[in-house]
Amino acid sequence: MKKLPDIKQDFSGWYNEVIYDSELVDHAPVKGCMVIRPYGYAIWENIKDVLDARIKATGHHNAAFPLLIPESFLKKEAQHVAGFAPELAVVTHAGGKELEEPLVIRPTSETIIHYMYARWLRSWRDLPIKINQWANIIRWEMRTRPFLRTTEFFWQEGHTAHETYDEAYEEVRIMLNEYSKLAQDYLAVPVFSGFKTAQERFAGADITTTIEGIMPDGKALQMGTSHLISQSFAHAFEMKYQDREGKESYPFLTSWGASTRLMGGLIMTHGDQKGLVLPPKIAPIQVVIIPIFKSGTDNSAVMNMAKSIQEDLRKDGVRTHIDDEESKTPGAKFFHWELKGVPLRIEIGPKDIEANQAVVVERIEAAKRFISLTNLKFEVISLLDMMQITLLERAQARVHQMRHQSNDLAEFGPTLENDGKFYQTSWCEKAECEAALKEYKASIRCIVDGLTYKTCFVCKEPSKKEVLVARSY
Amino acid sequence: MKKLPDIKQDFSGWYNEVIYDSELVDHAPVKGCMVIRPYGYAIWENIKDVLDARIKATGHHNAAFPLLIPESFLKKEAQHVAGFAPELAVVTHAGGKELEEPLVIRPTSETIIHYMYARWLRSWRDLPIKINQWANIIRWEMRTRPFLRTTEFFWQEGHTAHETYDEAYEEVRIMLNEYSKLAQDYLAVPVFSGFKTAQERFAGADITTTIEGIMPDGKALQMGTSHLISQSFAHAFEMKYQDREGKESYPFLTSWGASTRLMGGLIMTHGDQKGLVLPPKIAPIQVVIIPIFKSGTDNSAVMNMAKSIQEDLRKDGVRTHIDDEESKTPGAKFFHWELKGVPLRIEIGPKDIEANQAVVVERIEAAKRFISLTNLKFEVISLLDMMQITLLERAQARVHQMRHQSNDLAEFGPTLENDGKFYQTSWCEKAECEAALKEYKASIRCIVDGLTYKTCFVCKEPSKKEVLVARSY
Repeated sequence: MKKLPDIKQDFSGWYNEVIYDSELVDHAPVKGCMVIRPYGYAIWENIKDVLDARIKATGHHNAAFPLLIPESFLKKEAQHVAGFAPELAVVTHAGGKELEEPLVIRPTSETIIHYMYARWLRSWRDLPIKINQWANIIRWEMRTRPFLRTTEFFWQEGHTAHETYDEAYEEVRIMLNEYSKLAQDYLAVPVFSGFKTAQERFAGADITTTIEGIMPDGKALQMGTSHLISQSFAHAFEMKYQDREGKESYPFLTSWGASTRLMGGLIMTHGDQKGLVLPPKIAPIQVVIIPIFKSGTDNSAVMNMAKSIQEDLRKDGVRTHIDDEESKTPGAKFFHWELKGVPLRIEIGPKDIEANQAVVVERIEAAKRFISLTNLKFEVISLLDMMQITLLERAQARVHQMRHQSNDLAEFGPTLENDGKFYQTSWCEKAECEAALKEYKASIRCIVDGLTYKTCFVCKEPSKKEVLVARSY
Repeated sequence: MKKLPDIKQDFSGWYNEVIYDSELVDHAPVKGCMVIRPYGYAIWENIKDVLDARIKATGHHNAAFPLLIPESFLKKEAQHVAGFAPELAVVTHAGGKELEEPLVIRPTSETIIHYMYARWLRSWRDLPIKINQWANIIRWEMRTRPFLRTTEFFWQEGHTAHETYDEAYEEVRIMLNEYSKLAQDYLAVPVFSGFKTAQERFAGADITTTIEGIMPDGKALQMGTSHLISQSFAHAFEMKYQDREGKESYPFLTSWGASTRLMGGLIMTHGDQKGLVLPPKIAPIQVVIIPIFKSGTDNSAVMNMAKSIQEDLRKDGVRTHIDDEESKTPGAKFFHWELKGVPLRIEIGPKDIEANQAVVVERIEAAKRFISLTNLKFEVISLLDMMQITLLERAQARVHQMRHQSNDLAEFGPTLENDGKFYQTSWCEKAECEAALKEYKASIRCIVDGLTYKTCFVCKEPSKKEVLVARSY
């Protein structure tokens, strides 16, 4: 059977094969787009379900705004159009005719949503407005990789309007925290939370906050962002309302989004030489049951036992699958489900039934455990819980090892590219010092709390902000 | 307060106002597109949840295929492109450059999905392929109305491939039956199931089956279709596989879809002069609780009782909302929630608490019931169940009254336009007889079982098929 590229020597090659071999995704006939196959989509659905429930629990409602946006809308906010213009896909013809005004496919929906909010907002009583949409987005990217950067991707985008700056800022913080919990508690991907520098902010935001995961190659992956949007949007779309004092006011706006990129972070963080490793909480199949058939005999007892184990696990909400295909050997099945990252495998054959046991193999450690059928459900659920914790701890330990401190770019810069290291350092807040990172294809991923060094990592002038520096996806 | 147009005199005007006034939808700044507002989207989410669960229970998996399709793909199947070419929205520029080949925004996804299936299908062991996607669709329609016909709409489209004709045909039948159950058991909209004539088939289908609802104005609404796709698609996309005999074969294909149009059917079927009437099973709010405050006194006992009722109902999964806004009178609240079609209203004031009761008002009959707080939950759940049944029965009775039989178009044709009637009749199967309906702006909505008359309703030659004839949305 085909082997994946060496994950240590060729991480990028490994990623580019494992996503296809495990049937998460396939090449689409349109450049830079992806087809998310059923197995990949089932993971995305699990992620969506978790996040959607949290979005609703924090007081937001889903809605749907149009895919197509008049080109003139994007031009209403100067920074915004500058940021997105190079990436737009434009509809010029429709219904057999040339359109009077071209329509762009949404690269994000601030403009059209703000246009609608301006229609709906009359009084302070209409605030806050807290709406989310799950949508497809098009950004015409030059260099694409499935999940990490694609021309079309899937995301949720929340857009809110508030009476006060403090309330909007609190919203930004709450939703970033939701992203952080999603990443850590469900995807088992440790992340750093912090502010983006002015240079790295969303086009048109006053504040951009981010969660950044550190992948095994040392590169950072931005996995969710939450913005305090400039009030210039509210002005551009004439989003006026009568405030509590009866005066005309403009609301404070936020937006926040997380996308199918989360899938990329998940794959890279946990995968190994055998393939994907999926955290139990979001795995479409948590337990695969493989009946071991003996050729030339009646295998119905084995099959019945497999079904009975499945029924019992299902009652407790464990997502299971029985692989009873007869044209494949057990070995080929083990290989297949390891590649697909299923957390637990149960093998059950005639001898196991005689011994009132099953063989249980957990995806990370891969040692065979012989577990009494009487305790099977309890042990399976414990192992799944344990694996969820282990995956996060293992990833945290790796990130901890890769994290270094230094206050001299000349010293640490050359190690950024190939040594799988990232740095915490201190910065003077000047754009030219930040720009010096370009030489090493790196950037400030986020501003975090604290101040380790007294001087800037570039200019040696007094430092003001603590930053994480890394290359990135 | 503003009144809706008279639903009997001006049904169309009523529809066009109720959808905006009840905040289901709003005008979008792009012609023919709609913004689905949170209340409307919550109904759509409930419909989606029901249908998605059934799609999965019948063995299908969700996936995601690209929004953009190379223009050449649509041209591969002659009938298909002829059907969709006039409605396409075309991306000619992206990333600041003119594209070498224009991309169309999917008007439906057969072509791109069949292209992928051809890549995935090698052997009979790969069959059946049973995939669904929830997606947005663009068809550049000239005359649009929210939910009923919009430039962008939302739907699910299932696409399957099978070894045999019989298996594909069975799939077509199963999914049509799912649509019928969704319409009747959840939306409480009675529908007729049947075949489309050759003239009315999906562009490129050998068989199109449909569910048709009959609206209060006598017009039919096509609410879901399930197709056996021509094998010419399989040939056009070279979807070959090795069959059980080792020979090269082409699969039999189906596709089936239901869209946000279902919302239109729901609104028109149940609405009344006061506004929407939502079937409890898909209502975002099933029970609105209105605390009756007495000004100048401490209302905390009333508010606490409202909360306690809410808690109790929530435990049984009843979706509730407390309207405790202090700036509105109870009367204004009643009006508001009736407009929004909430199935049940509970009023609770100081006197009710003294009498250990609550006032319950059901949306259809609107009579006040005084129900003991002790029995409240039980009664509320019974009333919701009853209302779900009553809505379907009421709609069935209406449709029954509107249904007439006749075998003479000259006689019944003139009654099709304004009398709120539709007809069951018998047809010779000739296209020119079918075309005679155009004079009355009507069409054959579906072919059903039976044969009432011996002669065709137009040419009087021997009849072969029983058909339902109506105008349509």
